[in-house]
Amino acid sequence: MAMQMQDLQDLYVHKLQDIYSAEQQGLQAMQQSVGMIQTPELRQGMQMHIQQTEGQIRRLEQIFQRLGQQPGGEECEGMKGLVQEAQKLMQENASPEVLEAGLIAAQQAMEHYEIAGYGTARTYAQLLGDQDAVQLLEQTLNEEKQADEQLTQVAQQINVEAMNA
Amino acid sequence: MAMQMQDLQDLYVHKLQDIYSAEQQGLQAMQQSVGMIQTPELRQGMQMHIQQTEGQIRRLEQIFQRLGQQPGGEECEGMKGLVQEAQKLMQENASPEVLEAGLIAAQQAMEHYEIAGYGTARTYAQLLGDQDAVQLLEQTLNEEKQADEQLTQVAQQINVEAMNA
Repeated sequence: MAMQMQDLQDLYVHKLQDIYSAEQQGLQAMQQSVGMIQTPELRQGMQMHIQQTEGQIRRLEQIFQRLGQQPGGEECEGMKGLVQEAQKLMQENASPEVLEAGLIAAQQAMEHYEIAGYGTARTYAQLLGDQDAVQLLEQTLNEEKQADEQLTQVAQQINVEAMNA
Repeated sequence: MAMQMQDLQDLYVHKLQDIYSAEQQGLQAMQQSVGMIQTPELRQGMQMHIQQTEGQIRRLEQIFQRLGQQPGGEECEGMKGLVQEAQKLMQENASPEVLEAGLIAAQQAMEHYEIAGYGTARTYAQLLGDQDAVQLLEQTLNEEKQADEQLTQVAQQINVEAMNA
């Protein structure tokens, strides 16, 4: 069934639903992969980002509530593909160091998907004058950028270990 | 069949194959969506990025040749999902302005996927001492970042048109 998308408000709600689904899928993927991680720094970082993601989901729910819209109904195909990629990696015959290095790269792809999505949603919220949403989306956007940088940091050690595996 | 991934070199080749598939899929998606774009600035930008992408694919082929590896064999699930998302949008009942605004957002998600991928591949190339590849990957990485910024620019006008549609 084709969705009615006649103006930016429709596109904004659609984008928020897409991000909401992406966050839910990303959360499940992290909960799955965290159990396979041995490096303490990466495991702690992942656990922290799981908690952060739960807060980000609540922020989106606040925005939906104020808009009088439902968060569900949209399955984000983009994140589905990114999660499949991470799952495929977990099935490869990889050494523990290579698995961790690969999981970091997969996680960074997910962070970048979210950075693009939140950036777009924030722009729409600004244009539509939804100031509370702008603040909430920006808060999450900054967290996603930080998470990406933290992964780059922790990757430095793990990539070297993978190289010498 | 599980892939052997025992060290960073294996992961590096795997990542390059993933990006190669992503670029091919992204190229097809752009060739499909460019025909639906009416705003001249966006259409020209998209046509330019199509040409740029062809050059980026050739750079990857150079890297594979030097590595003595095949570029194909890997289908990038992440980009597949992002392309499906753009295709789904083209099937919605969207006004022309909303379609263009949505296509920009979808394209920016793809650019961010590539930014994450090239960033990772460049890091691996640096660690593995593949200096020529570092330069080629960095050149493309900069182009992807520029493409993302140009899309942000052109979105300013189109988002306002979508708002007033």
